[in-house]
Amino acid sequence: MSKKVAIIMGSDSDFPVMKNTAQRLKNWGIEIEVHVMSAHRTPERACEFATKAQENGFGVIIAAAGKAAHLGGVLAAHTTLPVIGVPIKSSTMDGLDSLLSTVQMPSGIPVATVALDGADNAAILATQILALSDEKLAQTLVSFKEEMVSGVIKKDEALQLEVEKL
Amino acid sequence: MSKKVAIIMGSDSDFPVMKNTAQRLKNWGIEIEVHVMSAHRTPERACEFATKAQENGFGVIIAAAGKAAHLGGVLAAHTTLPVIGVPIKSSTMDGLDSLLSTVQMPSGIPVATVALDGADNAAILATQILALSDEKLAQTLVSFKEEMVSGVIKKDEALQLEVEKL
Amino acid sequence: MSKKVAIIMGSDSDFPVMKNTAQRLKNWGIEIEVHVMSAHRTPERACEFATKAQENGFGVIIAAAGKAAHLGGVLAAHTTLPVIGVPIKSSTMDGLDSLLSTVQMPSGIPVATVALDGADNAAILATQILALSDEKLAQTLVSFKEEMVSGVIKKDEALQLEVEKL
Amino acid sequence: MSKKVAIIMGSDSDFPVMKNTAQRLKNWGIEIEVHVMSAHRTPERACEFATKAQENGFGVIIAAAGKAAHLGGVLAAHTTLPVIGVPIKSSTMDGLDSLLSTVQMPSGIPVATVALDGADNAAILATQILALSDEKLAQTLVSFKEEMVSGVIKKDEALQLEVEKL
Amino acid sequence: MSKKVAIIMGSDSDFPVMKNTAQRLKNWGIEIEVHVMSAHRTPERACEFATKAQENGFGVIIAAAGKAAHLGGVLAAHTTLPVIGVPIKSSTMDGLDSLLSTVQMPSGIPVATVALDGADNAAILATQILALSDEKLAQTLVSFKEEMVSGVIKKDEALQLEVEKL
Amino acid sequence: MSKKVAIIMGSDSDFPVMKNTAQRLKNWGIEIEVHVMSAHRTPERACEFATKAQENGFGVIIAAAGKAAHLGGVLAAHTTLPVIGVPIKSSTMDGLDSLLSTVQMPSGIPVATVALDGADNAAILATQILALSDEKLAQTLVSFKEEMVSGVIKKDEALQLEVEKL
Amino acid sequence: MSKKVAIIMGSDSDFPVMKNTAQRLKNWGIEIEVHVMSAHRTPERACEFATKAQENGFGVIIAAAGKAAHLGGVLAAHTTLPVIGVPIKSSTMDGLDSLLSTVQMPSGIPVATVALDGADNAAILATQILALSDEKLAQTLVSFKEEMVSGVIKKDEALQLEVEKL
Amino acid sequence: MSKKVAIIMGSDSDFPVMKNTAQRLKNWGIEIEVHVMSAHRTPERACEFATKAQENGFGVIIAAAGKAAHLGGVLAAHTTLPVIGVPIKSSTMDGLDSLLSTVQMPSGIPVATVALDGADNAAILATQILALSDEKLAQTLVSFKEEMVSGVIKKDEALQLEVEKL
Repeated sequence: MSKKVAIIMGSDSDFPVMKNTAQRLKNWGIEIEVHVMSAHRTPERACEFATKAQENGFGVIIAAAGKAAHLGGVLAAHTTLPVIGVPIKSSTMDGLDSLLSTVQMPSGIPVATVALDGADNAAILATQILALSDEKLAQTLVSFKEEMVSGVIKKDEALQLEVEKL
Repeated sequence: MSKKVAIIMGSDSDFPVMKNTAQRLKNWGIEIEVHVMSAHRTPERACEFATKAQENGFGVIIAAAGKAAHLGGVLAAHTTLPVIGVPIKSSTMDGLDSLLSTVQMPSGIPVATVALDGADNAAILATQILALSDEKLAQTLVSFKEEMVSGVIKKDEALQLEVEKL
Repeated sequence: MSKKVAIIMGSDSDFPVMKNTAQRLKNWGIEIEVHVMSAHRTPERACEFATKAQENGFGVIIAAAGKAAHLGGVLAAHTTLPVIGVPIKSSTMDGLDSLLSTVQMPSGIPVATVALDGADNAAILATQILALSDEKLAQTLVSFKEEMVSGVIKKDEALQLEVEKL
Repeated sequence: MSKKVAIIMGSDSDFPVMKNTAQRLKNWGIEIEVHVMSAHRTPERACEFATKAQENGFGVIIAAAGKAAHLGGVLAAHTTLPVIGVPIKSSTMDGLDSLLSTVQMPSGIPVATVALDGADNAAILATQILALSDEKLAQTLVSFKEEMVSGVIKKDEALQLEVEKL
Repeated sequence: MSKKVAIIMGSDSDFPVMKNTAQRLKNWGIEIEVHVMSAHRTPERACEFATKAQENGFGVIIAAAGKAAHLGGVLAAHTTLPVIGVPIKSSTMDGLDSLLSTVQMPSGIPVATVALDGADNAAILATQILALSDEKLAQTLVSFKEEMVSGVIKKDEALQLEVEKL
Repeated sequence: MSKKVAIIMGSDSDFPVMKNTAQRLKNWGIEIEVHVMSAHRTPERACEFATKAQENGFGVIIAAAGKAAHLGGVLAAHTTLPVIGVPIKSSTMDGLDSLLSTVQMPSGIPVATVALDGADNAAILATQILALSDEKLAQTLVSFKEEMVSGVIKKDEALQLEVEKL
Repeated sequence: MSKKVAIIMGSDSDFPVMKNTAQRLKNWGIEIEVHVMSAHRTPERACEFATKAQENGFGVIIAAAGKAAHLGGVLAAHTTLPVIGVPIKSSTMDGLDSLLSTVQMPSGIPVATVALDGADNAAILATQILALSDEKLAQTLVSFKEEMVSGVIKKDEALQLEVEKL
Repeated sequence: MSKKVAIIMGSDSDFPVMKNTAQRLKNWGIEIEVHVMSAHRTPERACEFATKAQENGFGVIIAAAGKAAHLGGVLAAHTTLPVIGVPIKSSTMDGLDSLLSTVQMPSGIPVATVALDGADNAAILATQILALSDEKLAQTLVSFKEEMVSGVIKKDEALQLEVEKL
């Protein structure tokens, strides 16, 4: 059986964005745990979670946080599992603070950063990582890529009707 | 045997930065291939490489590029393997162009972005991914983390001598 | 007869902005094709389109995309036709990501970038290019410039009424 | 015979960057004129040049300027020829001022902007535009693209020697 | 009698912001003219206005424009009168483009730039300039400064009521 | 008895944000004064307040201002008390102007800057400073930290219900 | 006789940049005073200077400062004379901090901001202001503008020699 | 006796900048400890240090770090002492990453941020905090402020000699 994916958010206000991550992973049959754990407000819980993540059966940790988004870095400091960072846009700085705080990690402790509010891509990246040793997930990803192609083609066809009206 | 890692650079001028990635992966016993392939100048070669990467035994692709850094995105478009993006700082915009071009990928096609010029972290992240199904690599990462700790402790001890002189 | 203009969008959500481009070109008697093709989700279709654009009678390709906006660059990589890039503002980073991803192309593969959401200017620029060998379009552009002058003059006159009320 | 290309610089200090543009166009057999004309210091000369550019046999105007880089916009205001803008990085703001001043043109007056200091791409873009009605230039561009491919392939081969030494 | 102040806007859509400038100058007894003139759409009119501004009795020109805001620079190129620039925030880039395009003028042609959307300050600065040779305006400014002081004091007093409720 | 905290705002429009600061300090039993004083409109009052703050029993001054936010710096110039700066986001530049104007103080005159609109953290920081010589406040902070932990834990529990529904 | 111009710098390290301002004003026969006065380190002296500037015969104050550049704003708070701000680039943030701190002044207290390190333009703007009531200075500015034109023309001629060599 | 100040750096490469902090505090008779402790490489040591800082006699912790500068936040998460953050400029992003990562802390956990590379101001701020309950330090700060005044006055006098030469 494939490893689990943890989705850790710095605040429960990040859940409307991160719901996508959880939903996609569930849909693809990956077992998940979702938690609110703050690098700053509950650092011990966050550290403990990361420290034990591997032995608790996790393969990937996804960390979502805004502003001075330290959550990904703090989790990565306590594990050797791959940590995916999702910078969340907050009410100031248009997300630049979250992005730089997540991605600009110093040598030794990478955080695999996806786009601002990139919840869906975090799920896909986690799946790509797990799929390296899970042939069924690998197949899921191939199908997903094919669906994206046909989805775009359908949109292109629908567009032609609108263009004709111009 | 563990899967291979591909290191693809948009230009051979990126090699002084990316040498670190290659060296660390080699040192840790991971088989690598290093190529100059441009998303813009040699798009066919880049697409073909990505398309066949999985069947050619690669587990992770690392893409390093500067300016409008499309390389990671173009490779990710043609594979379901995890793609790690290393934005390279060039002579203008202090790296912001490379960073945003690499990380701000649209839904469906993630690029796992590390810090600007973050060559070492790309290697570590690739290893973390492969280590999920390679116990020896997992051990390597644990040892590496311990070495970092003792490295910092040694630097802290050396610092005390300088502080005393103040 | 003048060459055709292709309008390629990374997503159908770009159409509300890019409708202007299509409408203006149509109004000026230029034959267009409008497509949704993603550099990341349907790379083969995008590449194929660009590769055959010249033999299919196109003179200019307009590419509109947001975030890590690779579409212009990917199309330009597969053609020697002039490619005009329209960076589209998305929900984060106020358009800076799209702008830099579109304009900061490496040597060898230019993308003629217009302003963020600059759909109208993309149409005008495409027409300016085609007008070099199409006297009627050249006349259209001269008339358009004159209309802009009289439009501003009319607005200036209307303004005087509001100023008097102060 | 093909139309001429004008290269207008806001200051003679831009020539070290813009020399590339001039050299490439000359090498490709395109007749050029190169001038220092400032949108701010010699506005009449700049306006007059642009106004008469078409009747004087020019097909494209390339404008290079730094800081509050108005040159492209000022020239474009006085012609219906395509104007290519090259934002030049100066001593402050890392080029962001030049880039935004050049690219963010209002509706009606496009400036086809290339990358910061993108002198070479300005020449290539100008050639792409002229090549639409000049078969020989179209061939030149195809050959150039092929040379880029073989150039990258050679660099990739050379790289292998360095990689082996690691 | 004091010299006139010209308020020139790149677009009539700037009037809601610039109305403040006009109103304050009128209230302070300064004769104004307000015009829509675009550096790009009606360059001749703008140039002519600036060229003749001094002989037409103007002492200061206020230029308001957004995006690649060249208006202040273009007017300043054609006059030796002081030109005040008001960068207008538009729909992208949060005003950074307007600000940099207005303020980063090259040596020789200053534009006295006030804050983004700083319509009121443009009027005050123009008055400060004219007041150097107009004792009555100088008095107006002193009174205005005193009113600002008493205005703040009143607000401070009103605030105390709200603070007590906490 | 503990020293007082002054909350000085550049404008009464900052009060909706800064109310939090006042409320928290009051709740924690710290005596406060809240004033509108502008570094620019009422500089004498601001300077005088800062100059006498220490002898008037204040221990910390909190300064909140937007745009070119000089208030913190001006107050700090006239006192040796610690001054906390709260940059307030205004209608342009997404807060970057306030942040840089507050934090980038020259050597000799620090302003202890908290996050954009970081009203709550200003109160907590002020309390941390006063708590160094006030055991009761020190206890308050320890309790507050514990409440934060239990608050996050509760949110995590509540989240589990939502996750199950996915 | 014309009014004097004050050049106030936040630090003597700004003098290498601001020397240009002083030299040009002297050359044009304008009486100057140059001082180091810090808004933060010597606020009283700065305030006193500004408060008395008008009665001491000054017509314009030029303020040059870096980082959180409050000097212009602080001087403007204490005078109704026009204050010109020169943001000075320092070792971090590429001048963005100085620019925003100088230009983004709140309503009521304008600072007429010129480009980063725009020492020469500060002198020209000050002269433009004084020239409104000084015919000789007005003539100086006209001659200066003519010299700029002939200077650019000479550079254009010199450039032709270099272009021929290509 | 006054409490101690801890200076914690993320890397020993920060010491050339932070030496100033240490030196000034020592000169002013404040007992210090200086350590290299990384939020990411030695998280346990950092957390333990912060947790025990208060009982070990520290009154203030100064944290200096670059890039995704989490050190201040991580220390602040484990103590109720005031934590001062010094963002250190590194080789990319001109310090913006360090600044935002340090200052944009979420509600509940403030970090008192000073300017980029603002080592001296960190020492002064720490002293201001300790001086609230240490009359001698309060006197030191008053003297320091007086010395700054006389230092600026001396520089102003020296400047006059240079100005006369113009």
